[in-house]
Amino acid sequence: MAEKIAIIGTGLVGSGWAVVFARAGCDVAMYDAAPGGAEQGREVVAQQLNDLAAYGLVEDEPSAILARVSVATTLKEALDGAVYAQESTFERTDVKREVFSAIDAVIGPDTLVGSSSSGIPASAYTDHVACKARCLVAHPVNPPSLAPVVELVPAPWTAPETVKAVRALMERVGQAPVEMTREIEGFILNRLQGVLLMEAWRLVEAGLATAEDVDKTVSKGLGLRWAFMGPFETIDLNAPGGVADYARRLGPLYHSIAASTDEHRVWDEALIGAVEAQRREVLPASDLATRRAWRDRRLMALARHLKNAEAS
Amino acid sequence: MAEKIAIIGTGLVGSGWAVVFARAGCDVAMYDAAPGGAEQGREVVAQQLNDLAAYGLVEDEPSAILARVSVATTLKEALDGAVYAQESTFERTDVKREVFSAIDAVIGPDTLVGSSSSGIPASAYTDHVACKARCLVAHPVNPPSLAPVVELVPAPWTAPETVKAVRALMERVGQAPVEMTREIEGFILNRLQGVLLMEAWRLVEAGLATAEDVDKTVSKGLGLRWAFMGPFETIDLNAPGGVADYARRLGPLYHSIAASTDEHRVWDEALIGAVEAQRREVLPASDLATRRAWRDRRLMALARHLKNAEAS
Repeated sequence: MAEKIAIIGTGLVGSGWAVVFARAGCDVAMYDAAPGGAEQGREVVAQQLNDLAAYGLVEDEPSAILARVSVATTLKEALDGAVYAQESTFERTDVKREVFSAIDAVIGPDTLVGSSSSGIPASAYTDHVACKARCLVAHPVNPPSLAPVVELVPAPWTAPETVKAVRALMERVGQAPVEMTREIEGFILNRLQGVLLMEAWRLVEAGLATAEDVDKTVSKGLGLRWAFMGPFETIDLNAPGGVADYARRLGPLYHSIAASTDEHRVWDEALIGAVEAQRREVLPASDLATRRAWRDRRLMALARHLKNAEAS
Repeated sequence: MAEKIAIIGTGLVGSGWAVVFARAGCDVAMYDAAPGGAEQGREVVAQQLNDLAAYGLVEDEPSAILARVSVATTLKEALDGAVYAQESTFERTDVKREVFSAIDAVIGPDTLVGSSSSGIPASAYTDHVACKARCLVAHPVNPPSLAPVVELVPAPWTAPETVKAVRALMERVGQAPVEMTREIEGFILNRLQGVLLMEAWRLVEAGLATAEDVDKTVSKGLGLRWAFMGPFETIDLNAPGGVADYARRLGPLYHSIAASTDEHRVWDEALIGAVEAQRREVLPASDLATRRAWRDRRLMALARHLKNAEAS
């Protein structure tokens, strides 16, 4: 029998999760506290499934996958019999505290709960609930159907079996779970993105290069390897003797670079305005929506490419 | 008539450059001070062209492209009539100083010179030559035929027209030049890679995640967008109002993350050993060469995918 998954909060992120679980064969129950919210979310699921099908990224007919997605009228109905609930409500501590209280009141003894929180750790909104050992953060990238990474971040009271079971579930449905041993601001993904962005802004601020040229350095250079292997594997293959050999050869250069970037200035309004002006010259504000649609098509084409490359 | 390009130093990097220029229709003269070096380099070119052809990444027959690549027996012969020379000799200041002296002695009045130096700025080895206004760094990623970015870094005495002309040449041959306004350690690419690596090592050192999970966070998440758009375009499309909107919303989070990573510790031997052990568990040292060949095939498939995606 198919596993049942509850989707709590059915905005863009929750709907994306519904696609992931339904595509993998799970029964998905969508619930949203806002009247009509879950129905709207299910329409987003239908749209995303059609897009994915056009790029060969689903095995079954979209309609067959959509048939596995139902709308639940109460939170209790959504959670009933679910092995896992993905919470994707508004990113504010007081909101999430209330949602977890409501979940706690009706959850069964075996259901695990992952929060899509991109920044607030689970300890900030699960300390008061009875099911807290079964709660953790499961932070996706949007949309999770195209970017499979999901960061699993336990609160101090999350049971190790919870992490283990959610990791196994995520692998079963085709996601790429990564695991933190404890909470830290920004988790892994936004910490890595953050340091790179900090240096990118700094280079522009110092007048060393334009934002466009910084972008090209990534999209026409660094990012090409990173689309199919991470930074450690990259350097492991870039020195004859592997990663330790690389660290001994190039460590001094990187330490020297890092030492010169200790100053983490706030991106002030003048700098923000300068980069905004550069971007708007490349892409007028009126074209942002069109470009976002372009990005989504490119991500789908890339996902298809990577899927084929991995299979061959 | 086809432009002539001189390749000075014909190891892996120089041979990669020969592929780039010959593929684009230039006449390429390869020179190496070591006897037989240029002949060996030309064989590498032949091999790379066959690989590229197998992935549909060259327009002409490999043999037709190779016919445009000749071996020069003297430096003078290589430079004679060349619009541009790409210097790719050993990465040591004293070596490069001598090479630039030798170039200076025989170079014509219109030839520009770019150095493949990945770290040493041009000011360290061109201050003494008469042609110094025509010299700069043109730092590629290996192999340049697959990763098109090239960092143009002028010395204080490099003429603006030199930068402009080399940028135009690089664009003509299908590379993606980025331009620094002045020299800085690590240029753009290694500075961006450096800050990300520094944080990656720190996460592993703090026991927050394994090297493998840090890698997956990039290869299954961050790196997917970065393979076709840079960090600024990424955040420009990730907030309703563009990059300034994003900076105001998420700046505080990133500053807070950055403030907590000010400590740039040296990667000490214990840490290097721990990451080496993790990597060798994933990939035994005896499999490094096989995995490098896998990476090159994946890069070629990705380059083909991106080429098609850009065309469509």
